[in-house]
Amino acid sequence: MVMKNASSTIKHAIVDFAINIKNIGVADPRRITHSLKVALAITMVSMIYFLQLFYNNMGDAGIWAILTVVLVFEFSVGATLSKSLNRGFATLVAGVLGVAVDSFASIFGSTSRPVILGFFLFLIVALATFTRFVPNIKKRYDYGALIFILTFAMVSVSGYRVDKIIKFAHQRLTTILFAATTCVLISIFVCPVWAGEDLHNLIVNNLEKLASFLEGFGDEYYRISNGNKSCIAAYKSVLNSKGTEESLANFAWWEIGHGRFRFRHPWKKYIEIGVYTRQCASHVEALNGYLKAKDEAPSEFQNIIKEPCIKMSSELGKALNELGLSMKLMIYPSSSTLHIENCKNAVDELKTTLKVTMIAECDILEAIPVIAATSILVEIIKCVEAISEAIKELSKQAHFKNPTDITPDKAEEHNFLNCGSHLKVAGAGEDEESIIVSVLSDDKIPQELDLGKSKREIN
Amino acid sequence: MVMKNASSTIKHAIVDFAINIKNIGVADPRRITHSLKVALAITMVSMIYFLQLFYNNMGDAGIWAILTVVLVFEFSVGATLSKSLNRGFATLVAGVLGVAVDSFASIFGSTSRPVILGFFLFLIVALATFTRFVPNIKKRYDYGALIFILTFAMVSVSGYRVDKIIKFAHQRLTTILFAATTCVLISIFVCPVWAGEDLHNLIVNNLEKLASFLEGFGDEYYRISNGNKSCIAAYKSVLNSKGTEESLANFAWWEIGHGRFRFRHPWKKYIEIGVYTRQCASHVEALNGYLKAKDEAPSEFQNIIKEPCIKMSSELGKALNELGLSMKLMIYPSSSTLHIENCKNAVDELKTTLKVTMIAECDILEAIPVIAATSILVEIIKCVEAISEAIKELSKQAHFKNPTDITPDKAEEHNFLNCGSHLKVAGAGEDEESIIVSVLSDDKIPQELDLGKSKREIN
Repeated sequence: MVMKNASSTIKHAIVDFAINIKNIGVADPRRITHSLKVALAITMVSMIYFLQLFYNNMGDAGIWAILTVVLVFEFSVGATLSKSLNRGFATLVAGVLGVAVDSFASIFGSTSRPVILGFFLFLIVALATFTRFVPNIKKRYDYGALIFILTFAMVSVSGYRVDKIIKFAHQRLTTILFAATTCVLISIFVCPVWAGEDLHNLIVNNLEKLASFLEGFGDEYYRISNGNKSCIAAYKSVLNSKGTEESLANFAWWEIGHGRFRFRHPWKKYIEIGVYTRQCASHVEALNGYLKAKDEAPSEFQNIIKEPCIKMSSELGKALNELGLSMKLMIYPSSSTLHIENCKNAVDELKTTLKVTMIAECDILEAIPVIAATSILVEIIKCVEAISEAIKELSKQAHFKNPTDITPDKAEEHNFLNCGSHLKVAGAGEDEESIIVSVLSDDKIPQELDLGKSKREIN
Repeated sequence: MVMKNASSTIKHAIVDFAINIKNIGVADPRRITHSLKVALAITMVSMIYFLQLFYNNMGDAGIWAILTVVLVFEFSVGATLSKSLNRGFATLVAGVLGVAVDSFASIFGSTSRPVILGFFLFLIVALATFTRFVPNIKKRYDYGALIFILTFAMVSVSGYRVDKIIKFAHQRLTTILFAATTCVLISIFVCPVWAGEDLHNLIVNNLEKLASFLEGFGDEYYRISNGNKSCIAAYKSVLNSKGTEESLANFAWWEIGHGRFRFRHPWKKYIEIGVYTRQCASHVEALNGYLKAKDEAPSEFQNIIKEPCIKMSSELGKALNELGLSMKLMIYPSSSTLHIENCKNAVDELKTTLKVTMIAECDILEAIPVIAATSILVEIIKCVEAISEAIKELSKQAHFKNPTDITPDKAEEHNFLNCGSHLKVAGAGEDEESIIVSVLSDDKIPQELDLGKSKREIN
């Protein structure tokens, strides 16, 4: 009996684990591809050296190639490039400095040589470790500093004579170059994962999440419909996206041009848009508090301001949706200003309504949460305006297409931009620039558009 | 002239860089200590092997010791312990598995051996890389998985015969153990930086920052005093502390008992307190918006609710201050409930005031931002209550002292806890448990108390 229980517990645990693993793969299939890519790179490098071992005695070199692949191969192209370049340059600089220090120490006899070497080693390692705290170095060259310390320590205490060191350093550098190049080539040419594209999609997704909250807020607040709760709660992840955005932008900085992004795409602007988006999300979080608190029927006062209130939140949602869509399609955001204007008109409308309303008619205590929620909506207008300005600047810097520049037939396809329609990804194949997206414009005629991969999940 | 300009520009750049570097050291002197500790560990390990090189030809072993120190030595004890243990165990497991796969492959002839080895290498590396995406493994054993892949690849393609592999694996393991032990010992015994203590101080600091905003808010809002702006803006850093808190909690999990913290201190509870603190900070961010918007004199309506409003915000500040102080001293939070009650009374008072006020007397449009700000204050009460509950649970789990359990003379020293006094660090030496803190109680008699290092900046 006990045995049976124990075995069923173990069985359950194994099944749970397997389901968990499967979900991780399903959530982002690029993880499976990445695992296979790493395995490919390591097997390739290992096998080349394994086979060479029998012909010429390379010995150690193979180990350094494997080490390089394991430490350098990262999820995105940018991260892999960053680590490869850091590793290469740091090894070179540290090697030269190591040889110099070792030659200098050799001038003195064999008794004082260890002392002089030890002194320089201590000094240079302490300085290099300290530079890792300098924010700009930490951001881009942290791995380089680490490898510098490693290589410098190795070279300076290798105990070889200078001529042997140079041969050894040359061999090491060749090995690292070979391994790092393999990693970079595999990461660029086998199902590449671009940090820049991930950053672009993350920002677009965040805008869409806020948009869907705001579009649903009015109806939800007035119990008009039983809104999709999961859609409403999706904004929460926006609040904590700072770290991901910053590291993606750092990696994107290293990436060569790809797809719709050129080398030196203004990634910094994305960080700025991210800051405003999070500010907006933090107001949305406060707004969500009033949604939870409201389980009774709308109060009298609430009904008085119902119309401008619903209009404000839905126009805000539309503006964000347009901004997200214009980024997705890399088109100058033309109609978001219109929605922001509509929103401001709704505020004026609200003010007029309030002026003519005798407040004494209503219970002021009942009105407090409603007034607070409305006031937050007004605050959100400022955030959305800031987002809109930032995206306009980005679209200038990144030379987004102007809707009017698009050829007549394309322009027809794009005209949904002016009617706040919804975008739905129909297929999600692997081939860049070939995903077919059906765009349901307001008159419900499905149209087809070429788009880059855009619905990919962010790791 | 051009030369002169260029040289002065270069001079400026160098001076700026030097000032920058100095500031980084001054901001947290532990960074300088850390750099010296790393240099000490690397120099020690390098010198031991450098000197041994001339007696017995250890050769490569030295390189592995240096590599281990460079990759394993981290800023905090917890991080160093985590990496050392991960590295040790992963090397052991991967070594055994590598030998097993190699022996299996040796059964087949030398023609099929590379194919079988390659197959297993690909399979196991792909699986191990994929496990790095499993959240629980990523959190604690990511470095272990990396080292597993590295060691497994190295052992399986080393091309040695089994008996030689075992000798080689034994030597490698001894070297890693020696280097990792050196790192752990130096990091524990030379000016240790405990991640747990940093986490504790970070949470306390965050509570204090929110407290100082809320204590200052009422006066600032009603232009009673020209409040300290920097004190008011300090809360901003709380919003982005999630990542730091989580990584500190992860490292703290590995740490042995130290100072006032036992092994297996409930660090998870700190994460929970952090979540509520950030929720509170996000409301404070919204509140700050109303502070910026208000540059004119208080409106009529504002003056009507002035008293309960100032009381609410100052009582909230006091409650948070008490909670922070009780965590700092690790004493059960006895009086925070009182302040929260006072706050709720102020809300009732506000409601009474509003009931008797004829709202029609005032301009509703003018009242909107005031009402919104007050409503946010009411929301903050809920957050502070949640923080208070979480800290009470923590104080039970972590066996905080009960104020009444403290010996009479100590109790006298602690009675300031019930009067919302201020704490000021007088000295900040290096020796744990010996910093003298003057506590100015409300009657301004300086008292002395033993406290652990508590004002340390978080990296």
